Amino acid sequence: MKAVLETVSQHRCFDGMQGFYQHHSEIIGLPMRFSVYQPPQAQYSSVPVLFFLAGLTCTEETFMIKAGAQRYAAKYGLMLVTMDTSPRQTGLPGESVDWDLGAGAGFYLDATVAPWSQYYRMETYITQELREIVLAQFPADKDRIGIFGHSMGGHGALTLALRNPEIYQSVSAFAPVSSPMSCPWGQKAFTHYLGETCERWRGHDATALIEDGCHHASLLLIDQGLDDPFLSEQLHPDRLEMACKKAKQKLILRYHEGYDHGYYFISTYIADHLRHHRDLLNSSH
Amino acid sequence: MKAVLETVSQHRCFDGMQGFYQHHSEIIGLPMRFSVYQPPQAQYSSVPVLFFLAGLTCTEETFMIKAGAQRYAAKYGLMLVTMDTSPRQTGLPGESVDWDLGAGAGFYLDATVAPWSQYYRMETYITQELREIVLAQFPADKDRIGIFGHSMGGHGALTLALRNPEIYQSVSAFAPVSSPMSCPWGQKAFTHYLGETCERWRGHDATALIEDGCHHASLLLIDQGLDDPFLSEQLHPDRLEMACKKAKQKLILRYHEGYDHGYYFISTYIADHLRHHRDLLNSSH
Repeated sequence: MKAVLETVSQHRCFDGMQGFYQHHSEIIGLPMRFSVYQPPQAQYSSVPVLFFLAGLTCTEETFMIKAGAQRYAAKYGLMLVTMDTSPRQTGLPGESVDWDLGAGAGFYLDATVAPWSQYYRMETYITQELREIVLAQFPADKDRIGIFGHSMGGHGALTLALRNPEIYQSVSAFAPVSSPMSCPWGQKAFTHYLGETCERWRGHDATALIEDGCHHASLLLIDQGLDDPFLSEQLHPDRLEMACKKAKQKLILRYHEGYDHGYYFISTYIADHLRHHRDLLNSSH
Repeated sequence: MKAVLETVSQHRCFDGMQGFYQHHSEIIGLPMRFSVYQPPQAQYSSVPVLFFLAGLTCTEETFMIKAGAQRYAAKYGLMLVTMDTSPRQTGLPGESVDWDLGAGAGFYLDATVAPWSQYYRMETYITQELREIVLAQFPADKDRIGIFGHSMGGHGALTLALRNPEIYQSVSAFAPVSSPMSCPWGQKAFTHYLGETCERWRGHDATALIEDGCHHASLLLIDQGLDDPFLSEQLHPDRLEMACKKAKQKLILRYHEGYDHGYYFISTYIADHLRHHRDLLNSSH
């Protein structure tokens, strides 16, 4: 049955359409919001689609407002999809106490520990329900899907791609949380969402996934600012790089002098990322 | 004496620097915030500078976050300056009651009626104090200054340029309030800021200024979306166009099918505006 979408707003942008939508998520059991940018090419044929996963505290709007991606999505004929970073208004205790846990901090996994496990199922939401809605209701090509993200969403893009390489043919990230098991943000989230068990954590840590034999056929692209205040404590791209080297996983990790963690950094390199995905998705077609 | 600037934040962006600053405004008598994007070329020489005036409810951040202008400012070597849309926390009665009067709604003029006249002096702030600060403390070329804006800020850009053609060599606007005397937003603001006297209003109405003999030596560029919900009641670009035609003021007014009043519209045409200013400012040099 076709999911019922409520259109929150639509805005013409670079001769395409920027839309915001709400629906009842069967997987999460609550209303969820997402956004789709349809490039002008989507009026005539199905186009490759990129899912962007945002960072802590963000919503489905953040990337669409701040990254300046639509200019290049229109140029290259790519659809963009963003979603909220967690379920909202679940009524769970502590949902809105911390900015790095609960609302705005879903960490792109299915929680297995109560009370979070009742609603926090972002992995299944993104890889199944939202993907199916987008493929059914927008002119997106099911065989050309990429995924990318920022910070917590960089973690999400890397882990969802490594766990589902048959779904996502291209991957990239801005300043990803590359080894959540090794950093305070990740340890806190994993403890609450997955419990104290360390073995289960490895399945949601990009570095551990690579170490444990997961592989992505494409070249991974990561951009990282050297003035990022979270670099040394939270992000650890060096650990991911070392694991990729050992496992012969192709990776380009670029460091950028003077750049920080925000969208002024992302906007500077967004065109490179869209070209990366375009090249991989069009060659795989 | 050199004004003391407090740096709120700085972010590397397209190899230039996006900065947010606060200072005590002598003209307004309160702290004011503004933002400067310095393109990479500004490290080596002074560059042309564009002042962007934002619309109702916006701040010095809005344009810098949403318009995607830095990509082209970096490419063309243009400095961008934005400022808040009014004094803030004045303590004046009614300051924050309406979104189209008081805070966030300074209308880019010097109020002459109490209580607003005590603080609301945005015209002198922008044309004198802020301009002098930017020229003194950033590598901006005093002989190559442009002005542009959106909605209420489009009104501001047009009127400040027509009132001060010796300061601003280039002008453009997105969906400007082209005849504030003829629309509810303008009538309300002018009544409170300037009093009931209609003659005084004409000095702050772009259409009336053209009718009354003001002239700008350059070609004016205006972009307007045809799905803009404010077009028929508030904006009246047709009145400005008619006045320009009668007065032989050069104007390009472009209408765009399907576009609305927001930043998804602005971002689509921002590159055209920066090229417009670059061409005029570099040829006048």
